[in-house]
Amino acid sequence: MKVAGFKAAAMAAELRYTGRPDLGLIIASGPVAAAGVFTKNIVCAAPVQWSKDKISNGRAMAVLLNAGRANACTGEQGLADAARSAKAVSEAVGCDESDVLLASTGVIGQPLNIEKLEKSTPALAENLGEENLEDVARAIMTTDTFHKIVSSEGLIEGKPFTVVGMAKGSGMIAPNMATMLSVVLTDAAVDAAWLQSVLSNAAEMTFNRITVDSDTSTNDTVIALASGAAGNGTLDGEDSSGAAEFKKAFYEVMTELARMVAADGEGATKLVKICVNNAKDESQAKAAAMTVANSPLVKTALFGEDANWGRIICALGRSGAEFDQNKVDIAVDDAYLARQGLAAGNEAAAAEVMKKKEYSINIDLDAGSGSAEVLTCDFSYDYVKINADYRS
Amino acid sequence: MKVAGFKAAAMAAELRYTGRPDLGLIIASGPVAAAGVFTKNIVCAAPVQWSKDKISNGRAMAVLLNAGRANACTGEQGLADAARSAKAVSEAVGCDESDVLLASTGVIGQPLNIEKLEKSTPALAENLGEENLEDVARAIMTTDTFHKIVSSEGLIEGKPFTVVGMAKGSGMIAPNMATMLSVVLTDAAVDAAWLQSVLSNAAEMTFNRITVDSDTSTNDTVIALASGAAGNGTLDGEDSSGAAEFKKAFYEVMTELARMVAADGEGATKLVKICVNNAKDESQAKAAAMTVANSPLVKTALFGEDANWGRIICALGRSGAEFDQNKVDIAVDDAYLARQGLAAGNEAAAAEVMKKKEYSINIDLDAGSGSAEVLTCDFSYDYVKINADYRS
Repeated sequence: MKVAGFKAAAMAAELRYTGRPDLGLIIASGPVAAAGVFTKNIVCAAPVQWSKDKISNGRAMAVLLNAGRANACTGEQGLADAARSAKAVSEAVGCDESDVLLASTGVIGQPLNIEKLEKSTPALAENLGEENLEDVARAIMTTDTFHKIVSSEGLIEGKPFTVVGMAKGSGMIAPNMATMLSVVLTDAAVDAAWLQSVLSNAAEMTFNRITVDSDTSTNDTVIALASGAAGNGTLDGEDSSGAAEFKKAFYEVMTELARMVAADGEGATKLVKICVNNAKDESQAKAAAMTVANSPLVKTALFGEDANWGRIICALGRSGAEFDQNKVDIAVDDAYLARQGLAAGNEAAAAEVMKKKEYSINIDLDAGSGSAEVLTCDFSYDYVKINADYRS
Repeated sequence: MKVAGFKAAAMAAELRYTGRPDLGLIIASGPVAAAGVFTKNIVCAAPVQWSKDKISNGRAMAVLLNAGRANACTGEQGLADAARSAKAVSEAVGCDESDVLLASTGVIGQPLNIEKLEKSTPALAENLGEENLEDVARAIMTTDTFHKIVSSEGLIEGKPFTVVGMAKGSGMIAPNMATMLSVVLTDAAVDAAWLQSVLSNAAEMTFNRITVDSDTSTNDTVIALASGAAGNGTLDGEDSSGAAEFKKAFYEVMTELARMVAADGEGATKLVKICVNNAKDESQAKAAAMTVANSPLVKTALFGEDANWGRIICALGRSGAEFDQNKVDIAVDDAYLARQGLAAGNEAAAAEVMKKKEYSINIDLDAGSGSAEVLTCDFSYDYVKINADYRS
């Protein structure tokens, strides 16, 4: 996969891991329109602080990403290391330091191995190529079991454009994006302010609607860059010709990335969509869906393929959503577990659905017209195993 | 353990389990002062609805408790079965139906086996004895690995009094008391309104400060009854002579019950006290402590004995508490993991602490003078195993 106007390279810099790529660089041919969405956690990593600041002018040229150490909770040294990382990139590729964005994932509280990183940037610069985006997607993996990269295409006034997105996910994925790094690239010409608006809205409907374990990390970063190489007239609002086509492709990429992240939840064996319909309003629908999606008791029941709808209605009842317990319907796909708050006596059909790897839990609260969908996964033995000794 | 003025009985009624006691009755010699605290989940079980209503006059004479089926999400039939349960007790022991309180725990969405329950109440009435409270504590167990009953004593104006409390806990234990049933009995003479005040405050500081899995159930019930058999002058406020002694004994019992419930969290191998100090205020301290205590990533790290303080500070950062990440100290017992937001380089000492079965995580936010303590346990393989197939 490639996008006109961008090159990339990845390598094994041995920042923490050995024998696998852990450092990636993406670069445009010059400063381009840039937008970002970052963690809302008040404890935020040095690279997040750096990138939020530098992207505020709506332009960037390079993104350096690393896995292994998050450069979070590393104090003044962390900020200095972030600045040194950007300087190393700027020297290697010949750009302004302030046009370099940074994104890190990995263990919190350990400094970057900045000397190794600095030594690695010239090699990255030498190996830049249009076909290397997948290598970067691999380099940012931590406990991910597969790399995540998606492409979508469209036409703006007859001119073809491409959107390619990559993400790393796995654990610590929740409402406000958790330890997720993502970069979305397009060759469409897009005004930075509108790109920010498209990215923010898409993040709310995709990455903010998945949950692995209700945690939200110090390092969440989603960056969008638009090179303009497609040659279309710059999109700068909903009324621009081609705006709808662009948003469609952009949402497709982010939706699929979010799905892949949820499906690759640590130890996950199931990908389950929680659909809440007819809540009092959309915000209550989202709260209800998120509470079900984050309940450890629901998630272990999903793993056990146990149609324990009592745990689902119990989570709904503490979610803050207002409803009458005697009006609630709950189904897995089209097999009803409960109707009007009572057991539907449908357990054999439900058990068949719950054996599947992907299905939906459909909840009707009969309290209004708000709806929301959230993707979640199950809690397995492996979730505990992976997270009991993540640092070792 | 016994308390003057109360008798009890338990039996294997085979309501769901076989070969173990699952039904218990506690009875006073007449209507006595009564207080209750119930789940805040808007989906609440029939016995909760019944008991909340009947206890509103501040008096009760009997409490019937069962394990196996929660009689939650059972609609009109559930309410009718609750009424039949109370009627069966009233006929068996000769009291007013409205003086019978009910508490159920078990699977949600399945009706009680009301015929078996009705057949069992005469046998319960025949076997009432002062020494049988422990049998009732055993009868209300579900996935509990041990029964929980505690006693405390004191003097009011020279007269000895006793407080005995029992509880069942295990899974679904969280902020608002989760599937927890508890009965606290005293022979002190206490005015019902003040007993309610003491119970509500004690519940907030004990049962509402423990968490197993962040879930809150449909059936949470804590009932307090005061027989007055100790012969003291009735306590009716903070100024009553002996009020402090009574509260001390009452809090001791509830504190120890809460500790036992957290220690017996499903699959738990660790009991960890999360102490947040110097938060902006007490409410932020509690929010911070609860967010750490409920984080699946923290809880799996506790199981793995991994001093991964990054996950702790990350949870603090999304808790809503306001603080400067560069001022946070985190220690396990007295071994600092982080000082001023940076790694304290103390991992060997920390690793020793984390091998223990009980310890504290001490967090200083340096943002004010609010503090709070919450008890939690770890997430183990067994937590997943127990909850993956709870109903089978």
